[in-house]
Formats: sequence, C-alpha cells, structure tokens
Amino acid sequence: MKQMVTNMLAERGVRLTDVAALVYALQQPYQPRLTLADCLASVASVLEKREVQYALLTGITIDTLAEQGLLAEPLQSVIAQDEPLYGIDEVLALSITNVYGTIGLTNFGYLDKTKMGVLATINDNPHAVHTFLDDLVAGLAAAASARLAHNGWRATD
Amino acid sequence: MKQMVTNMLAERGVRLTDVAALVYALQQPYQPRLTLADCLASVASVLEKREVQYALLTGITIDTLAEQGLLAEPLQSVIAQDEPLYGIDEVLALSITNVYGTIGLTNFGYLDKTKMGVLATINDNPHAVHTFLDDLVAGLAAAASARLAHNGWRATD
Amino acid sequence: MKQMVTNMLAERGVRLTDVAALVYALQQPYQPRLTLADCLASVASVLEKREVQYALLTGITIDTLAEQGLLAEPLQSVIAQDEPLYGIDEVLALSITNVYGTIGLTNFGYLDKTKMGVLATINDNPHAVHTFLDDLVAGLAAAASARLAHNGWRATD
Amino acid sequence: MKQMVTNMLAERGVRLTDVAALVYALQQPYQPRLTLADCLASVASVLEKREVQYALLTGITIDTLAEQGLLAEPLQSVIAQDEPLYGIDEVLALSITNVYGTIGLTNFGYLDKTKMGVLATINDNPHAVHTFLDDLVAGLAAAASARLAHNGWRATD
Repeated sequence: MKQMVTNMLAERGVRLTDVAALVYALQQPYQPRLTLADCLASVASVLEKREVQYALLTGITIDTLAEQGLLAEPLQSVIAQDEPLYGIDEVLALSITNVYGTIGLTNFGYLDKTKMGVLATINDNPHAVHTFLDDLVAGLAAAASARLAHNGWRATD
Repeated sequence: MKQMVTNMLAERGVRLTDVAALVYALQQPYQPRLTLADCLASVASVLEKREVQYALLTGITIDTLAEQGLLAEPLQSVIAQDEPLYGIDEVLALSITNVYGTIGLTNFGYLDKTKMGVLATINDNPHAVHTFLDDLVAGLAAAASARLAHNGWRATD
Repeated sequence: MKQMVTNMLAERGVRLTDVAALVYALQQPYQPRLTLADCLASVASVLEKREVQYALLTGITIDTLAEQGLLAEPLQSVIAQDEPLYGIDEVLALSITNVYGTIGLTNFGYLDKTKMGVLATINDNPHAVHTFLDDLVAGLAAAASARLAHNGWRATD
Repeated sequence: MKQMVTNMLAERGVRLTDVAALVYALQQPYQPRLTLADCLASVASVLEKREVQYALLTGITIDTLAEQGLLAEPLQSVIAQDEPLYGIDEVLALSITNVYGTIGLTNFGYLDKTKMGVLATINDNPHAVHTFLDDLVAGLAAAASARLAHNGWRATD
C-alpha cells in the first residue's frame, strides 16, 4: 500500500524528494547536521503508517474525482473551486500530522500559509484540482519533521 | 445548503427525528425536563454550521460513490468493506463533534460503539455502504447533546 | 521518564495491569487469542511515547494540585468539582488516543461513558480529585487497543 | 467568567486589542473593509465560549505556577524551559481554534511560527513563563479570524 500511495503522489506531481526538501527547510535550522537523505528517510517512515496512507488515499481520490467532474453537486463545486470555508482538507491533513504528536501542528500551518517549494507548484496549476493535495503534503512534511525532532531528542536522552 | 444536507440524510435513511431520539437518550438523564422537540431543535441548529454541512456532504458522497462502485481501488474496497483500520470516517465525525467543544467526544464514542437506534438500522443494511454515515450521525447527535449541555448550563449561570 | 509516569499512575491508584484489563475487555472479542500479557505489553509500549508521557504528567499534576487546594480560583472549583462543561481533560486524553490514529476514538468514548474496571474505582473515590485521571486512563487503554488492532492487521498484511 | 479571563490575559501582558491586531493582519487582506473594531468584536465574541475560557484558564494557571516554581518535577522544568517536544500547549490552543472549525488551523500555525505582534513581546520576556500563553493567544486570534471568515461568507450567501 505504501508503494501505491507513493505512486499516487507522483502522478499528482509530488515526489518524495519534494516533501523531503520541505522537511529539510523546516528542521535543519534546529538540527544543523541533518541531511536531505535523513529527511527523505523520515518521509518514507511516516508513509508506512496506515492512518497516513488512508488520509492520502482518500484526499487524492476526492481531488481526482473533482478534476474529472464526477462528484455530485454541491460538493463538486466546493472542491473544484477550493472554497475557503471548506475545512475537511485540513481535517485530513491534521490526522497525518497528529501521528507524531501535536508539535507538528505549527509547521503544518506555516507550510499551508506560506506555500513553500512544491506546495507553490501544486497550488499554481490551473488545470488540476489540488484542494486536498496541498494540505496533505504539508501535513506529511510536518509529521516527518516532528518525527525527526522526537528522534533527535531521544538520541541525547 | 442545510436543506440539501437534510435531504441527503433522508435519502440515506436518516431523518432528523431519528437523530433527535439519540440526543434525547443521551441528554434526558441529565436534563429531566428535556423534550424530543428540544432535541430536534438542537439537531437543526447544529446543521446550520458550515463545518458540519461540509463533513456530512463529503462523507455521504464517498459512501454513495463506494455503493455505486465508482471509487478507484484500493479505496473502493476499503470503504465498501468498512475496513476496521480506516479511521477517516471518525476524523470527519470528530470535526462535527468539536463544533460544540470536546465534551461531545464521550457521547460520540459511546454511540459509535453501542450503535443505538437509527445507528443499528444503518449498520445492519447489507445492501448499502454506510461507512461514513454511522459515524457522522453519531457525531451529529453528540454535538447536539453538547449544545444542550452548554445551553442548560448557561441558563443557570 | 516512563518509570516516573508509571509511578505517578500507581500513586494515583492505577496499575498498568488495571489498564491492561481494560484493553483486554475492549480488544479480545476481535482478537480471540489475545492474552493479558499482550495487553500489558501494548500499554507499556504506548507509555514510551513522549506525547503520552507529557499528557499524563500534565493532567495528573493538575488533579493533585486541585486535591491540595493549590490552584487559583476559578480553576480550583472547576477541577475539584469535575464541572461537566470542562472539556480540557478530554482534550488531553485525545492527544494520547490520537498517537495510534483515530480508530481509538470510539473506544475512548465508550470507556469514558461506561466507566468499566479501574475507571469506576477512580471515579467513586470521594476524597480524591481524578478529573483528568479517568479520561487519561481511558485514553491510554484506547490507544493500547488501537495499537493491537494495527499490529494484528499488519501481521496478516 | 469572560471578564475574569480578560483580566488574566491583561495581567499576563495581553490586551484584547493586541489580539485584535493579529486578527486584522490575518484577515484584512481577504476582507478589505474590515476594521480593527470588527476584529476586537470578534475576539470578544470568541471569549464568550466556555471551551475557550477553560482552555485559557487552564493554560495560564499552569504558566503562572511554573513561573512561581510551584509545579512538581519533572513538569516544572519542562514548562519553565518551554521544552520543544512538549505539545500540550498546542493541544489546548487547538481546542480554542476548533471552536470555529478547522479553517483556523493554518492561521494558528502561521502565527505560532512567525510570532507576530504581541506574540514576540510575550516570547521575548526572559522573566516570565509563557509556554502556554503564546499558543493560546495565537489560537484565540486564529479562531476570531475564522469567525470573521465564516460571517463574511454568510453575509453574501
């Protein structure tokens, strides 16, 4: 299932190295010797969690159906236009972030607001529906950062 | 939009009076003079919240697509079989319950485990997919109960 | 820190075997060959999570301060009387339950409502303040059950 | 109780106008005719929610006890040093933000990371313990922004 989710992300324009780059930008200031390979390994580890896989699977499926115009109204319009009051995308992203505790919350919000790196690329594509994808990817990067923070701490505990 | 969501619930076999009956069972022991009409009014009030409408809309749409076999695999099988480790239905239900604070959490879990009233009817239908619906209805009843608890308290404050 | 939290629980009247008994009652119907020792091992594993330790530490400290009358008003009265609209105890418990995903939510609510096993003992003690403790222990048992559910699933994956 | 919480915030260095200024910075780009008075009214309205009052009351009480060195170890050190892996402050803040739905999540994380306005003042005070306060104030501003977003939407609905 992990491979399937990784493939779905790639088809939607997000490689795991793109997510790792977000993790590096978030976490390297606090863990100076961190490498991009460490970040990639952390993203891969988060992707093994069933809860994370299901959140990604569900959100990307909804995005894709909306892109193909296959959702019933009014949900079709709400998702296709990324209606600002629709918060279910954040709800799903939060279930990813929570897997490594609430310390990921701040990073999730920061990424979602500033749209760094691959998040800008996703968001600026006018032909695709990425209502869920940008939040989910921000949540994934936040969880992988929280995981590194917990592990770094444990290493010196 | 509230009317549209009410209609969707009815099409899926849940009338607002069914939800009100759950609220009455939960809350009447603590507020003895509570009537079924009070409970129905509380359910109707919760249904005016945009967050609640979007959660119901999203979950019921996914159930319906799964029932029609229109979701891509592996999500189609996960939803159609109500895979026990799939927790996104609970995540959506929680976003309903939270609208009146965390005191609704206990009632949500209790309803979801005991499957009282309409929840049993929904759950026992072998021809329908109600993976999201039972959790969402439990969340709606829990939120309407929490609203009554908050209001009852305020009345004597 | 895990040993310290285990000791704090014991001082407040909760042994890990009491929590394991709750886990067994929740999970054995679904995993018939489960033993009490498996449940105890799962509780011990959940207690290694930093997020879980901090939630227990914070909640038990507040309970103890309230028991000694050391909190400033109005919080002192709210906690000492377990005011029904106070939901921060549920919030902390949820941060424990979430560590193994949202599938634990239902069990948390069920335990918190039915007050099985050690939860009844805690709750019926008129000389102690256990406003946070009962929710935290329910959250811990729910998380340990969710962990077993995830692992059982993985075993056959 | 609302007045009591307002006073506690003021004693800890946070006036409601400071929170309103954060709301204005977040929300004015999307609602150009918004005034600081609108933002202040929204903050005041959020403060009427019982859940919000209890979260503020609990968090500020813990900060104050830690500042006076009155918490038992190890919690005393964890809070006094604002240990980065301690996430209970975010958990409490989230229970504030959630009162107006999950659309506030992004703004909460952004404020918590960038430490705008009064959040910088709070955070830079070396003589005070504001482990909970900065998160709670960010959560309060995020909830008041979400409330304005929901209401603005309704106005044109």
